Amino acid sequence: MAPSQTLNPATPAFLAQLEQRLAEGILRKPEERHVTEPRGRYRGQAAAVACPQTTDEVATILRAANQARVGVVPYGGGTGLVGGQVLPEGPVPLILSSERMTRLRAVEPAGNVLIAEAGCILHDVQRAAEGVGRLFPVSLGSEGSARIGGLLGTNAGGTGVLRWGNMREQVLGLEVVLADGRVIHGLKRLRKDNLGYDLRHLFIGSEGTLGFMTAASLRMVSRPARTGAAMLVVRSPEAALELLALAQARLGEGVSGFELISGMGLRFLSQVLPDVRQPFAAPPDWMVLVDLGLPAGIDPAQELEALFGVAMEADLVSDGVIAQNEAQRAQFWALREAIPEANRLIGSVASHDVSLPLEALPEFIDAAARAVTRIGAFQINCFGHVGDGNLHFNVFAPEGEARADFDGVRRQVMDVVHEAVAARGGSVSAEHGVGRLKIADLERYGDPVSLEVMRSFKAVLDPVGILNPGAVLV
Amino acid sequence: MAPSQTLNPATPAFLAQLEQRLAEGILRKPEERHVTEPRGRYRGQAAAVACPQTTDEVATILRAANQARVGVVPYGGGTGLVGGQVLPEGPVPLILSSERMTRLRAVEPAGNVLIAEAGCILHDVQRAAEGVGRLFPVSLGSEGSARIGGLLGTNAGGTGVLRWGNMREQVLGLEVVLADGRVIHGLKRLRKDNLGYDLRHLFIGSEGTLGFMTAASLRMVSRPARTGAAMLVVRSPEAALELLALAQARLGEGVSGFELISGMGLRFLSQVLPDVRQPFAAPPDWMVLVDLGLPAGIDPAQELEALFGVAMEADLVSDGVIAQNEAQRAQFWALREAIPEANRLIGSVASHDVSLPLEALPEFIDAAARAVTRIGAFQINCFGHVGDGNLHFNVFAPEGEARADFDGVRRQVMDVVHEAVAARGGSVSAEHGVGRLKIADLERYGDPVSLEVMRSFKAVLDPVGILNPGAVLV
Repeated sequence: MAPSQTLNPATPAFLAQLEQRLAEGILRKPEERHVTEPRGRYRGQAAAVACPQTTDEVATILRAANQARVGVVPYGGGTGLVGGQVLPEGPVPLILSSERMTRLRAVEPAGNVLIAEAGCILHDVQRAAEGVGRLFPVSLGSEGSARIGGLLGTNAGGTGVLRWGNMREQVLGLEVVLADGRVIHGLKRLRKDNLGYDLRHLFIGSEGTLGFMTAASLRMVSRPARTGAAMLVVRSPEAALELLALAQARLGEGVSGFELISGMGLRFLSQVLPDVRQPFAAPPDWMVLVDLGLPAGIDPAQELEALFGVAMEADLVSDGVIAQNEAQRAQFWALREAIPEANRLIGSVASHDVSLPLEALPEFIDAAARAVTRIGAFQINCFGHVGDGNLHFNVFAPEGEARADFDGVRRQVMDVVHEAVAARGGSVSAEHGVGRLKIADLERYGDPVSLEVMRSFKAVLDPVGILNPGAVLV
Repeated sequence: MAPSQTLNPATPAFLAQLEQRLAEGILRKPEERHVTEPRGRYRGQAAAVACPQTTDEVATILRAANQARVGVVPYGGGTGLVGGQVLPEGPVPLILSSERMTRLRAVEPAGNVLIAEAGCILHDVQRAAEGVGRLFPVSLGSEGSARIGGLLGTNAGGTGVLRWGNMREQVLGLEVVLADGRVIHGLKRLRKDNLGYDLRHLFIGSEGTLGFMTAASLRMVSRPARTGAAMLVVRSPEAALELLALAQARLGEGVSGFELISGMGLRFLSQVLPDVRQPFAAPPDWMVLVDLGLPAGIDPAQELEALFGVAMEADLVSDGVIAQNEAQRAQFWALREAIPEANRLIGSVASHDVSLPLEALPEFIDAAARAVTRIGAFQINCFGHVGDGNLHFNVFAPEGEARADFDGVRRQVMDVVHEAVAARGGSVSAEHGVGRLKIADLERYGDPVSLEVMRSFKAVLDPVGILNPGAVLV
């Protein structure tokens, strides 16, 4: 019997008892945002929302829930894309929201470290770093609402991974409340610490199923002295990767971002977000956004000119625009960030967040498109963090047809795409996580012994199964 | 009862039975190197050394040992500094050496990945990367003999951490044999993979106590287009950190290495390694080795000149030498790498591998020196990877006195140094691990709940306790 089947609902009696142990105003009525998610695939249940302000309060809440066998669903900014933040069925849970844990406990430019509580919004953390002349290098579309706790829980990626790594790579230390209320006090600020097993990375990316992360010490990095960007039309995804290798051979980590954009993505923008300024009169089949962050002694625009010249000679690119100033660079990024928004407005039949070994990536794009087209005449918008091998391969209804007509084949579409990923040593969850959407994929494509170990760790850390029941593992 | 107390010795009968399950030549007589360690603090026991060539053979060996309740001590290059590779007491174990698992299974410059088996020597991995125009960025003194399995087991650090991270940060995927012979096939080559919990980082740094890592997929990075180095005399450790901040503000990740060297270290070199060329006529109290790796468009020597000028004006530095070519840069690094060798020749009373938040580091150096001097008129050689907050704070007998006379106060010296570390939020094991030397420190300074979780994971993955008994946790 799966643990979640033995859970109890969060009854009025349980909530009344819990309320007595907590300061006033912590237990609240759920709002609409607490039971919905961006793609509208799941609708959550909630008996109440707990909004603690301190780690002790989180411990009190979890201890009570564990004793009463009540499920607890963690809630951050609500921006997750795999249904990790909503529990649609089973005994009604308590929502545990980080929204009032928004303190920056420390900002230390000398040590290049800050300590942020789980409820801090990513954009606020970025600004705090900027305020002391540093950079917090995680950047993604939902940074205005995504919270640190959720970014940790899903090991969020975004556009800075190529240079600075995923959320995981920013974390020097963690404070975690376990299911039974015990607290791991691990907010070290060290670059090197080999005193015992590293527990951080097990909690990061576990989507709230192993513990509730209340705060993290996060590294800050140097702000690049000079920045620049270009939009370059590439012959193919393969040419994009060759261009990346050229750029990195010359500039190393100076290549901060490298994003692939498809003609379909540009046409979608024209359709639903016509105000977004496009760089080329006719949408090319493929283009890349190259972003540079360089030392003081070199000129990014000149470097991009030189790169363009070499890439033209090698027949990798056919056209390009180089940002002449920061405003234009921001415009390039605004176009890139508008693409998922356009996708949402149109509504996909199936979205895929996959990663592949770089060398397998171009061939995957062809193979997956062929496999999907065998099911229907779908429109495909394939884009993303190509330098990380991470693509968002999103499938839309044929032009003029309704998305709803294809609900019946959604799983089939996902399966053929994921098969094409697995056959090439890729991952069917690159940066969004497993949540509730990809549980079957984890069981199917995950390494069997790893799965056994994951289950045994879950059983050790959360024997009752109260933590985000039904997410990641069932 | 601790698990290791229930173990059996590796008897001739056990070995004979195991031999029948294995190809010829795998079980061997132990050599001297299998039972010694660099600092001579422990002497190991060994019934036999198993030298498998395949993952299946490792699985067979562990399965047999687990059934027979025989301890297994992992052995890599034998360069570990905390006694993790030698079991001095208790039932005599089997040594499991990676020395014949030396295949590079893949080297993929397009994907910037290589797959190395546990027995690959670090220097060979570096050369393989260089052979395809890439860099494998872990670099340390013992790179000519340290093996990938041991580097993973101890999460080795070294001189490249400032820019590229510890061993942990290089690992994209792992193949691990568990205590009962099950195999985790996790050699993915992906930059982003959020399909389930991240198990990699639990095995990395667990010093062979949770599983035997047989192979890893490792990232390669771009080779910096231009390199340079300087030796600069700094006023103090504090000035060194200010100099680092100046350098990073201008050059970002272009600062590849930043090593602190003390006057005592230079005098030790004069005493026991007089052939090592020293940059300054009189040893300064403190100097740093700054190493740069820059894009093609900038000149490292010019950048170092400029940095020196700014640092002179700010009264951070008083003298310096800038490498005029690669040979001179290599000479600078040879001096740095000779320092631990000189330490070994002299023989320390106590060695410490500690890390601190950067802002606490200068004050720690003073406080620890004062505390140690209260015990005796010791000579202190404090040096290391100051950019990572990682110092080797090594304590030697007073001039003209014998190290052996101070054996009785060694633990006392270690305790006062470690207290000074803990009081400032540091770690008493920065890059060497816990092994057998620092078990008491882990119990004393480790977070109590983290320790409980570590023990529960050990119990799940190695319930009999055969894996490196008596290391890390007892």
